[in-house]
Amino acid sequence: MFLLNQLVSTRKKIKGQLANALTLINLGLGITAIMFILQGSIWYGFLFIALAALFDRFDGMVARKMKIESELGKQLDSLSDLVSFGVAPALLVQQATLMPLSFVGGLAVVLFILCGALRLARFNITDSPNEFIGLPITAAGCIVAFSTLFTEQLPATFYVIFMICLSGLMISNIRVKKV
Amino acid sequence: MFLLNQLVSTRKKIKGQLANALTLINLGLGITAIMFILQGSIWYGFLFIALAALFDRFDGMVARKMKIESELGKQLDSLSDLVSFGVAPALLVQQATLMPLSFVGGLAVVLFILCGALRLARFNITDSPNEFIGLPITAAGCIVAFSTLFTEQLPATFYVIFMICLSGLMISNIRVKKV
Repeated sequence: MFLLNQLVSTRKKIKGQLANALTLINLGLGITAIMFILQGSIWYGFLFIALAALFDRFDGMVARKMKIESELGKQLDSLSDLVSFGVAPALLVQQATLMPLSFVGGLAVVLFILCGALRLARFNITDSPNEFIGLPITAAGCIVAFSTLFTEQLPATFYVIFMICLSGLMISNIRVKKV
Repeated sequence: MFLLNQLVSTRKKIKGQLANALTLINLGLGITAIMFILQGSIWYGFLFIALAALFDRFDGMVARKMKIESELGKQLDSLSDLVSFGVAPALLVQQATLMPLSFVGGLAVVLFILCGALRLARFNITDSPNEFIGLPITAAGCIVAFSTLFTEQLPATFYVIFMICLSGLMISNIRVKKV
């Protein structure tokens, strides 16, 4: 009987932490992407950001379906998103194409991550169940990461303007319906 | 009279956002540190993490002194801390000494940032005015960054063990008095 109770309690605990574990995997994949970018492996950097996006999609879904949404989960999700869809994609673009622009390229990277952080901080303190206010950092980060597939066709200045536009959209008041 | 009112209102707004502006400068310095690390400039990476720590010390102080503490400020602070004292110092150690360890070094980097994120998420949902629970990520990040000054004297494996210990301390229940 004691063992059965222990088993049930452990199962509940594991279920409760499942969404957070998925969020931590998302963060781990984002960090791995950055480490690949650090070594100049643009392709692996892109691949790991894409994998992080997959897990980011899962964790919210699992939390809602299993009714295990928590305040800790929400905080952890924002922290992970800043790394996986703010820092990692911005560094990916820098390493892939912005290096020759030096200072201007660096400014675009800083702006993108700052606006992403502002977007996440605002998201955490507002309660808007059916829509996002401002372009979500997950979307902005995935678009930026995907755009690095075209660095041979597009000039570096395009990426600077593109990142400035996405930064503006993140802190704007446009409303995006949740899907 | 209208102009005076406008001036007073603008002054209040600027005062209200001063702490958040300092937090964003902290984040900007952390991102700049990462960009230097990306280019292999260990010394500049260390310098910018130290500058970020200086601004991190200021923002909380300003918010408390001017009584402009806000929920947005708290969220922004955590997001900035993860980048400036989690991601940046871990990458600094990786670039400075862990590269030859490959997988094991990468694991230590991931563990350090994951534990930092868990520490920050827990901090955001607990209300403990006089003490920190678990080693603050700011302290852990600064210690790790400072330790890279001794990479010629210490073996890479020391850094792996050191980062694992600090990771454990961040998610532990030890209590650190706020100063």
